[in-house]
Amino acid sequence: MARPRVIIIGGGFAGLSAGRRLRKTDTDVILFDRRNHHLFQPLLYQVATAGLSPSQIAVPIRNLFSRKTNVAVRMEEITRLDPQANTVYTQRGAEHYDYLLIAAGTTNSYFGHTDWSKHAIGLKSIEDALEIRRQFLSSFEKAELADDTDTQRALMTFVVIGGGPTGVELAGSLAEIATKSLPPDFRNIDTSETRIVLVEAGGRLLPAFDEDQSERARKDLVGMGVEVLLNTYAEEIDSDGVEIRSGDTTKRIDAGAVYWAAGVKAERITESAGSELDNAGRLVVLPDLSLPGYPNVFAAGDICKAGDGKGKETPGVAQGAIQMGKHAAGIIASEIKSGVTTPPGKRPAFRYRDKGNMATIGRRRAIADFGWLKISGLPAWLLWAFVHIAFLIGFRNKVVTMFEWIYMYITFGRGARLITGQGRNPDSPRND
Amino acid sequence: MARPRVIIIGGGFAGLSAGRRLRKTDTDVILFDRRNHHLFQPLLYQVATAGLSPSQIAVPIRNLFSRKTNVAVRMEEITRLDPQANTVYTQRGAEHYDYLLIAAGTTNSYFGHTDWSKHAIGLKSIEDALEIRRQFLSSFEKAELADDTDTQRALMTFVVIGGGPTGVELAGSLAEIATKSLPPDFRNIDTSETRIVLVEAGGRLLPAFDEDQSERARKDLVGMGVEVLLNTYAEEIDSDGVEIRSGDTTKRIDAGAVYWAAGVKAERITESAGSELDNAGRLVVLPDLSLPGYPNVFAAGDICKAGDGKGKETPGVAQGAIQMGKHAAGIIASEIKSGVTTPPGKRPAFRYRDKGNMATIGRRRAIADFGWLKISGLPAWLLWAFVHIAFLIGFRNKVVTMFEWIYMYITFGRGARLITGQGRNPDSPRND
Repeated sequence: MARPRVIIIGGGFAGLSAGRRLRKTDTDVILFDRRNHHLFQPLLYQVATAGLSPSQIAVPIRNLFSRKTNVAVRMEEITRLDPQANTVYTQRGAEHYDYLLIAAGTTNSYFGHTDWSKHAIGLKSIEDALEIRRQFLSSFEKAELADDTDTQRALMTFVVIGGGPTGVELAGSLAEIATKSLPPDFRNIDTSETRIVLVEAGGRLLPAFDEDQSERARKDLVGMGVEVLLNTYAEEIDSDGVEIRSGDTTKRIDAGAVYWAAGVKAERITESAGSELDNAGRLVVLPDLSLPGYPNVFAAGDICKAGDGKGKETPGVAQGAIQMGKHAAGIIASEIKSGVTTPPGKRPAFRYRDKGNMATIGRRRAIADFGWLKISGLPAWLLWAFVHIAFLIGFRNKVVTMFEWIYMYITFGRGARLITGQGRNPDSPRND
Repeated sequence: MARPRVIIIGGGFAGLSAGRRLRKTDTDVILFDRRNHHLFQPLLYQVATAGLSPSQIAVPIRNLFSRKTNVAVRMEEITRLDPQANTVYTQRGAEHYDYLLIAAGTTNSYFGHTDWSKHAIGLKSIEDALEIRRQFLSSFEKAELADDTDTQRALMTFVVIGGGPTGVELAGSLAEIATKSLPPDFRNIDTSETRIVLVEAGGRLLPAFDEDQSERARKDLVGMGVEVLLNTYAEEIDSDGVEIRSGDTTKRIDAGAVYWAAGVKAERITESAGSELDNAGRLVVLPDLSLPGYPNVFAAGDICKAGDGKGKETPGVAQGAIQMGKHAAGIIASEIKSGVTTPPGKRPAFRYRDKGNMATIGRRRAIADFGWLKISGLPAWLLWAFVHIAFLIGFRNKVVTMFEWIYMYITFGRGARLITGQGRNPDSPRND
């Protein structure tokens, strides 16, 4: 008899942890991802800000499941789900499954302003990060050549929309490069006069943290020269800047680049699930993480809206995704072993174990909240660095990353300060 | 009185060495490059073959000439020369010079078959290298999904056109990844059956070396599973492969990708110099490296055809470019100091000091020729690794590169095995 077939969509934190949990079970697992690599998303902003190289935070998914395991990896996009027929579709055709785990993650949401995606890049992929790096560094090159100070000032202004962890980390890093790494390199401009504006629609930064930690982060950013605008949102974004509104006042900011960290929505694949979605397009799952009406279909990670088992929602962080992937895979594994399908209501409910929450603001500045312990400043930063290196997948990436960070810490140098992606033939730049 | 103004076009080996030579002179030097980085070209094939990351072999030119020096760096392309008016043009306008050094290097030459550039990427820029990496790795992903063995076999065939150092190093590295690094990752294909074909129009590989060393390189490659076809050239290249001709026989090879290492020509800027060009578009220079009729205009590096002072031509290698840049800058420096323009015939003639010639074929395989000493195998490979690390610019790159190589040597792992450049939005791939 054929072994039960489990399909996992997505090689992010949720998909990988599920694949690992199923590795030694009597199943045939196929993990689909349209990219060949797993991305350590929490450090992606460091690629965007020239601190790390892409290969230091990404690893080919195939590497993690060698041919000896029961987990096959296919670099293919799932284009449609048909849970009634236990089938998913790729461009090449139908794939049957006995169990399905949807863990395809999220994409940037521009709240209906789809044209903004051209002008305000979000930070979701390696390509995004390299494009942010290219725009940022190119803008200084253009400012260096510019003849008038108004143009220079606009080219040296960068606006980050969204005051969550990504926005805070990005704004802090950009300020750091501009004031610490770049000044010796330019002569017509003083890059320490660079203006970084962080725009947050809510009343404080990092709403997942306590109010006093939010305030600490804001003060740290301001101390680094970042302008933090709370209760402010983008009303219009174009190629030359952004129009922001706060209460009844609108203001235009001309900028060299605008970056988007204000919102994400579920990958579109959820639309074909025939199941309830929330307003961010996420699959609303039962406490066991299965889809209502489809006990053999689970969702995990940022693509689903799941409770944390304590009356709140599981936050959209790596730990949440890892734990969800493991939970769903655990149910699948035990049912395959026993041969009995348990009704969703009788399955163990997912319970999120909060291992703490961290955000880094800059060199020696971070905040961390473990419930029983809240720290900030240098201790939080050291802890942040330690935890992130420990979690980076693969020995190699750990050592190289540690070296880069130590080096950066000592010298303020940034190794990956390249402008690439101008197109193979520099005579015909791809973006300019 | 204004200081004499020296313009350098190009931040490659020749331009950098000239800039360094002029650093402490009483001049205003402007170094123009359309890219922001100097590229350590001899190791570019390692980026293409997933061994190194771009930032390990490239360094922002600005980093090398901080604002404290008299050398300003501008990321701008020179579009036209007017040596009669002592002027060069960028898109923004005219720039006057007292002395000019043209060191803009070369681009791929497809011998009139301009459409081949779409199907057979050469190895000139970081973007080229990443595209080669993307094509190579993607081809295995497609083969893994393919249903018939003919398609798989074609997708697992790669043709390298040109048996000089680049072609040899590329073919050797590709064979190594396919047979050593990739096999555990795939299950429907056996990547050790990958076919790497190296096509060389001449009668032997690496014509700059002795015949017995050429033969040693050929044997090493064949031992690694590379098919070496001598006296053979490409007659047609399309998106699915190549048609090759040897004598009166033509043969079609269906391939996952074709790579171009068969020829380069000077950057087009030479056409506006109003000076003699050879058939590769290179500037023919006088023994002092100045342009005939323009004693204040010099050329250095691969963009010029220069004698070696011993009746031969200076070879197109990094050492040649470095020495030429330094020679031209030395003449400029001494004339500016003395205030006297010497006629070209009375200036010191450039004399190429051959520091030896090396090429690596694969792990523990290389050849080196120092005139008085010719070595091959492991000693040559160790020497090659040592010399290349020593020459890599910047402490940081040295340490990281050494670590990567030691790690690769021990594990056969390749750190940078990412498929990127699919476009920021994976729904709309840039190339496929």
